[in-house]
Amino acid sequence: MGRLTRTRPVVKVRVGDDPRVVRRSDTLAVEEPLEVRLDGSAFLVTMRTPGDDIDLVHGLLHGEGVITTASDVVLARYCAGTDADGLQTYNVLDVSLVPGAAPTGPLRQVLVNSACGLCGSTSIDQVVTARRHPTTFREPLPVERVLAAPELLREQQRAFDKTGGLHAAGLIDADGELVCVREDVGRHNALDKVIGWALREGRLPLVGCTLVVSSRASYELTQKAVLAGAELLVAVSAPTSLAVELADEAGLTLVAFVRGETMNVYAHPERLDLAAVGSVPVG
Amino acid sequence: MGRLTRTRPVVKVRVGDDPRVVRRSDTLAVEEPLEVRLDGSAFLVTMRTPGDDIDLVHGLLHGEGVITTASDVVLARYCAGTDADGLQTYNVLDVSLVPGAAPTGPLRQVLVNSACGLCGSTSIDQVVTARRHPTTFREPLPVERVLAAPELLREQQRAFDKTGGLHAAGLIDADGELVCVREDVGRHNALDKVIGWALREGRLPLVGCTLVVSSRASYELTQKAVLAGAELLVAVSAPTSLAVELADEAGLTLVAFVRGETMNVYAHPERLDLAAVGSVPVG
Repeated sequence: MGRLTRTRPVVKVRVGDDPRVVRRSDTLAVEEPLEVRLDGSAFLVTMRTPGDDIDLVHGLLHGEGVITTASDVVLARYCAGTDADGLQTYNVLDVSLVPGAAPTGPLRQVLVNSACGLCGSTSIDQVVTARRHPTTFREPLPVERVLAAPELLREQQRAFDKTGGLHAAGLIDADGELVCVREDVGRHNALDKVIGWALREGRLPLVGCTLVVSSRASYELTQKAVLAGAELLVAVSAPTSLAVELADEAGLTLVAFVRGETMNVYAHPERLDLAAVGSVPVG
Repeated sequence: MGRLTRTRPVVKVRVGDDPRVVRRSDTLAVEEPLEVRLDGSAFLVTMRTPGDDIDLVHGLLHGEGVITTASDVVLARYCAGTDADGLQTYNVLDVSLVPGAAPTGPLRQVLVNSACGLCGSTSIDQVVTARRHPTTFREPLPVERVLAAPELLREQQRAFDKTGGLHAAGLIDADGELVCVREDVGRHNALDKVIGWALREGRLPLVGCTLVVSSRASYELTQKAVLAGAELLVAVSAPTSLAVELADEAGLTLVAFVRGETMNVYAHPERLDLAAVGSVPVG
C-alpha cells in the first residue's frame, strides 16, 4: 500500500468568522504513468496509481481483447525504466504473450504518449519545456475570487442539474469574469472545449486567467492548464501527486478542495493575496 | 444543448419505511465517440458529450502539441460517419492542417479504438458480439444486497479516507462476499485491476457476480463489465447514455445512483427481486 499515497506540503486557507492560513502536510493519491509493452513493443501508456500492476495489465489486455485467459500471458515483468538516479521506477511492464495468441475481440491500437515517459519526472520536464508562454506575475489575486470560482461554474452547469453525470470546466478572465463554460462526460473534454474556445478566440496564452474544473485535478488536466498558459487551476476535489509536482515545477498555482470558505493551495501560493485573509501563515 | 442529455426509462427503487418500485423517465448525460482525423488519417477517438466539437478538437490538438494557434487549422468539418439509416452521426471530424504545420511539442501517437466506430450503435454491436460468455440467469438477487454494495466497498477504501482522490472497484461473488477491492486514481484502472485479478484467479466469466464502482458508470466501465461476463454493475453515481444502451443490449443489469435506501435500475431489472420490496411496480 506504500505507493498508493504520498504526502506533500499544503497551505490550508479558511475565510469567514475564524480566518486562518496554515501550512500542513497533506496526503495525496499517487499518480504515475505505466507503460505497457507487448513482447518488447510499446502498446500503451496509462496514468495509474502504482500497485497491483500485474492485475492491471491482465485486466487491461482482457478488456482490449488481446487475451482471454491468464495462460495467454507467458510472463509479465518490470523492465527498463530507471529515473535520474538510475533507480528502477517500476513504471514499465513488458508482457510476453503465448506465441500465436491472437486477439479475439476488437483490438485497440497503440496509444503512446511520448510525454509520459518512464517516470513522472521525465514527463514533467517535457511539459515544462513545452510550456509555450512565459508566466507573467501580476498583482496577488483575492482569495474570495478563488473561493467563488466553483459556485460561479456551478451556476452555469445546466445539464449537471438534470443528470448528475457531467463534468464542467470554466475560464475566468483577468477581470474575474467567467467567460466560457463547457460540460462533458469527460472532464478532460470539458477542459479541452474551453481551451479550444480560447484558442479560437485568440485568447491564448491565458495570462492572468483561472481555469476551474468541477472534478479532481489529475496530471492530464494540470498539463492542459500549463500548456494553455493559465496562471491558476482551481479544482473542486482532490489533486493527484503528479498534478501537484507538475504545477510546482511549471509555475502554476494549483488550488483544490475548494469548498465554501475553505481551500487548499498545493503549489505557488504566492500568486494569492493570503495576507488579506487576516491571518499570518503559521505552522 | 439538445444532445447534452437524453431521457431513458428507469426503475426507481426505495426500501425502508415507505418502500416503492416505480417506473420513471430519467435524464442522462449523453456519451458518444468522436473520431478525430488529421488530413483524412485517423488520429484518435475520444468518448465525449456531443456539442462544441470544433472547440474540443482545437483544445485537444493544442494539448497534444499538434497546433499552437487557430490558424494552424485550415478546416475542421464533420465527415463520413452515417448510422444504420444513412444519417450523419456528427461523430467523425476531419481536421485539415496548414501545410508544414509541424508539431511543436511532445506528440501523442494515434489512439484508434476500432470498437468505437462511427456511432454508438456500431460500437455496441461489436462489444455485444465480442462478449465471450453467455449470460446465465440465476435466481433474483435481493435488493438489499445491491444497496449494500457501495458501503461494503467504501469500508475497504483505505486510501480514499486519506486522500479523497482515489476511485475504487470491487468484485462481489455469487455468495454476496466482497472478494477483491482495488483503488486507483483512474476508475478504469481500478476496474481493470479487479478484472485482471479475477482472470488470474481463474474466476472469469463472472457468472452470478456483481462489479461495484465508486464512480459514475461510463461506457468504458460498462464495456469492461460486459466483457468480463459480470451480471450486475453497481455504480454509486450517474450512468451515461451509452453505458445504459450497452447494458441494455448486452444483458447486463445496470444499477446506479445507489445511495442508502434508494437506487435506480437502468437496464435488466428482472435479475433483481423487486417483488420482495413489498410494492408492485407502478407508473
